[in-house]
Amino acid sequence: MRLRKTGLQPQSNGAGMRTVDLNCDFGESYGAYTFGQDEALLKHVTSVSIACGFHAGDPHTMREAVERAMAAGVSIGAHPGLPDRLGFGRREMAISAEEACDYTLYQVGALQAFVRAAGGKLRHVKPHGALYHMAGHDEAIAAAVVRAVKSLDPALFIYSQSGSLLLEEARRQGMRAIAEVFADRTYLPSGALTPRHLPKAVLTEPEEALGQALDMIIRGKARTAEGSEAAVLAETVCLHGDGPNALHLAASLRQGLQEAGIRLQHPQ
Amino acid sequence: MRLRKTGLQPQSNGAGMRTVDLNCDFGESYGAYTFGQDEALLKHVTSVSIACGFHAGDPHTMREAVERAMAAGVSIGAHPGLPDRLGFGRREMAISAEEACDYTLYQVGALQAFVRAAGGKLRHVKPHGALYHMAGHDEAIAAAVVRAVKSLDPALFIYSQSGSLLLEEARRQGMRAIAEVFADRTYLPSGALTPRHLPKAVLTEPEEALGQALDMIIRGKARTAEGSEAAVLAETVCLHGDGPNALHLAASLRQGLQEAGIRLQHPQ
Amino acid sequence: MRLRKTGLQPQSNGAGMRTVDLNCDFGESYGAYTFGQDEALLKHVTSVSIACGFHAGDPHTMREAVERAMAAGVSIGAHPGLPDRLGFGRREMAISAEEACDYTLYQVGALQAFVRAAGGKLRHVKPHGALYHMAGHDEAIAAAVVRAVKSLDPALFIYSQSGSLLLEEARRQGMRAIAEVFADRTYLPSGALTPRHLPKAVLTEPEEALGQALDMIIRGKARTAEGSEAAVLAETVCLHGDGPNALHLAASLRQGLQEAGIRLQHPQ
Amino acid sequence: MRLRKTGLQPQSNGAGMRTVDLNCDFGESYGAYTFGQDEALLKHVTSVSIACGFHAGDPHTMREAVERAMAAGVSIGAHPGLPDRLGFGRREMAISAEEACDYTLYQVGALQAFVRAAGGKLRHVKPHGALYHMAGHDEAIAAAVVRAVKSLDPALFIYSQSGSLLLEEARRQGMRAIAEVFADRTYLPSGALTPRHLPKAVLTEPEEALGQALDMIIRGKARTAEGSEAAVLAETVCLHGDGPNALHLAASLRQGLQEAGIRLQHPQ
Repeated sequence: MRLRKTGLQPQSNGAGMRTVDLNCDFGESYGAYTFGQDEALLKHVTSVSIACGFHAGDPHTMREAVERAMAAGVSIGAHPGLPDRLGFGRREMAISAEEACDYTLYQVGALQAFVRAAGGKLRHVKPHGALYHMAGHDEAIAAAVVRAVKSLDPALFIYSQSGSLLLEEARRQGMRAIAEVFADRTYLPSGALTPRHLPKAVLTEPEEALGQALDMIIRGKARTAEGSEAAVLAETVCLHGDGPNALHLAASLRQGLQEAGIRLQHPQ
Repeated sequence: MRLRKTGLQPQSNGAGMRTVDLNCDFGESYGAYTFGQDEALLKHVTSVSIACGFHAGDPHTMREAVERAMAAGVSIGAHPGLPDRLGFGRREMAISAEEACDYTLYQVGALQAFVRAAGGKLRHVKPHGALYHMAGHDEAIAAAVVRAVKSLDPALFIYSQSGSLLLEEARRQGMRAIAEVFADRTYLPSGALTPRHLPKAVLTEPEEALGQALDMIIRGKARTAEGSEAAVLAETVCLHGDGPNALHLAASLRQGLQEAGIRLQHPQ
Repeated sequence: MRLRKTGLQPQSNGAGMRTVDLNCDFGESYGAYTFGQDEALLKHVTSVSIACGFHAGDPHTMREAVERAMAAGVSIGAHPGLPDRLGFGRREMAISAEEACDYTLYQVGALQAFVRAAGGKLRHVKPHGALYHMAGHDEAIAAAVVRAVKSLDPALFIYSQSGSLLLEEARRQGMRAIAEVFADRTYLPSGALTPRHLPKAVLTEPEEALGQALDMIIRGKARTAEGSEAAVLAETVCLHGDGPNALHLAASLRQGLQEAGIRLQHPQ
Repeated sequence: MRLRKTGLQPQSNGAGMRTVDLNCDFGESYGAYTFGQDEALLKHVTSVSIACGFHAGDPHTMREAVERAMAAGVSIGAHPGLPDRLGFGRREMAISAEEACDYTLYQVGALQAFVRAAGGKLRHVKPHGALYHMAGHDEAIAAAVVRAVKSLDPALFIYSQSGSLLLEEARRQGMRAIAEVFADRTYLPSGALTPRHLPKAVLTEPEEALGQALDMIIRGKARTAEGSEAAVLAETVCLHGDGPNALHLAASLRQGLQEAGIRLQHPQ
């Protein structure tokens, strides 16, 4: 895991104040189906990643999500996924790098249309689910995703997991990379997430999650399941909108970070 | 049927030379399925309308279609359709005006991404199939489609059938409307197409089609099945890419128009 | 509106006891998306109509729905819809009669596989949404749907709205037709439902709905919005699974019917 | 690779005559898109595997394919695939065994409906593309596919590649397994196919393909790319319907096998 600050999203500004972005997935409803607790979560984040109609979302959902995000004053990103609505984009598929590029371009372009129509500005791209993982581990997919985003707008931020190949590839192609961490998860010593099926993979107590977030943001260290530490870069923290505890966790995390003197702000 | 020149695509220029656009649908393949004779038709047209992934097309097909159209130097437009791939967008669906707006925005935005990534420029939007018909006859749908296109880029041309409500609505909203005719069809006295199931609806002989095209372009008159004339405005002529005779018809139409002194040129 | 008893689902048995079926739509979730309150509603009905993967449902959802329905001892039917998942099958589409037949056959066959695999028996077919309405009003579509069902199993019941063409066509083709009514709706004098956008179309009070149901079952009369009566045939009553009040309404309807001496039983 | 005769499809009958099945994929068109040369190939085969609407095919295509196969007197099987129409079911997806079971059940059930409606009988199931490969190599997927088929009809044959886990699992669950070979391909010493990107993977000359087929059917030996031999079991030979040479290859293979005294007959 190679960790390098981007210089674009300083964790500490001149006056010594650290900043971090809080992001969540957004607009994942579809037709008559609703998903997640978009509205309630919106007030806790500084940026949202809006589904683009492949794994979730549809034209109407995208319009509404863009309008709500703009009304709330949060930064808007695209959340492209695999063409697998039935699997919610969570199942890896043997797509080619060229397909990864074209799928990204299509979805980000579609969302960009709604953002532009609403008078807003698209600021980042964060791949979803299996595409997030594939772009994080597969060099060819990572390069293809970055190429797609860059060809649309070289000023877009690319969000990806701390330590991922996608971040590295984004920087290599001159794009601005934002390293993401998960407050409610422990990490492997390598800096990767502890797989969910292992013990202590998930931190269910809000105080634990807050502690994990603070350590990652301030000290660049994440706790592992065994109690050791892993080096991570925390430029944005992902909040979940589903799960019974999601809203409570989000609210307490936001409050805790602010009380610790962290400035919550989307990448500039 | 209200016919009015747009002033934007003069049929006669200062030197007295008439111009017309020749367009065809393009990029309607999908995954492993090919459709039409795109490559062969490309050399006969001055503009193409590229399918956007709803009724036909997919991200890879769109990329290729854009690159081929740019290599051939033809003008590129978006060809959004209904979300009915199984029916190739040809079956009317009871969608709302808001849905028509959102579907158009989504599809045109997606295509725009590929055009921008390739360094090109999207110049027009022409709805496909049932959406073309619905937008031509239903005021609310027409207004919604125009609103979507305008919100993306007010400089886009809107192609629609001569005499349609969509052209009228485009002009009303300050957009540039391009009236389309079909060389191989006869018209009703009202200026609408003779329905395909009626006798003499289709002109199968290339000379008949050329004659029909010349009459429409030069005199603004189309022949009806009964032999009378209907007033039409011919700013672009649609060529078909399917059917056994398609390429022969396209080639002879192009040659015949040029020999008659018509300049073939996409809307400027 | 022609109302005729089928003789197959007597409203009054030898001992003078009236019987009625209570049905609800079932298994309308899809992938990561849940829909309705299937489990809670299941204990109030005697038959369920399971979505078949076009407008809603998917293979996993169908398997689970079948297993739950069998565990609850309710009768299982197929609920085929239009190929419009984005619109939840609620938007009319200009499909041909042949397409209506083939879509019905495909969906009912798919559900039948899950029922057979679970050792159960498929007992009825009830079209969904726009297909329900189209088959109720369009003779060619009605005939095509009946033909499809009959070709699969001539013993299947066909559920459709009291007074619909589909019921008539089912009887004409020798199939067993079950007339459906809606307890929480008023009717037009013709026997059709009062359209939802009109005043007094919906009965929100459980007592009103129970009264309407009893009148329809016992006297064959439904109240209109204006207070007059319309002739209806009530062999099955549809309960809704969505809406804030759905479960309360279902429970009170079931209890009220039983207290009035109506036997709740699926068609035999 | 474990090869074992099934006893159900003897390669040699009492009089010493060997029999083999010739199969091809069938009904892979979709909506307005046509695929392959179904009609022309139909006269060369003894069984067809019909696409079921996931990777290819649709209700109308399925009806037509069933009717044509019945008119031609060939045996009908189902050809279920992954839910990836865009990728024609050729891309592996990380589906669970339960999903493999449910997808198979859904698709085979849907096809069975058309076969039953046409008065025919479904005789086999052959997974398509990536599902064919996954079921051939992954025990859990293989077991799930067999379980699905068996739950529908324990008399169905399961077609799979010679030496595959799916054949073994079919036999283990008491189902009748039919081993498939490819006449126009060479094999690895293990009995697997030489991957297409390697030299000499494909035999383009009809005589070579015929020689390969005869060796496999009569001697149970396939040639490898290096010239050695691999043990295979050839109970059915797959003919391709796409490719420029497909029909010529099919015709010459059929004729050559017959001239060599092989009886062409679907599994009984």
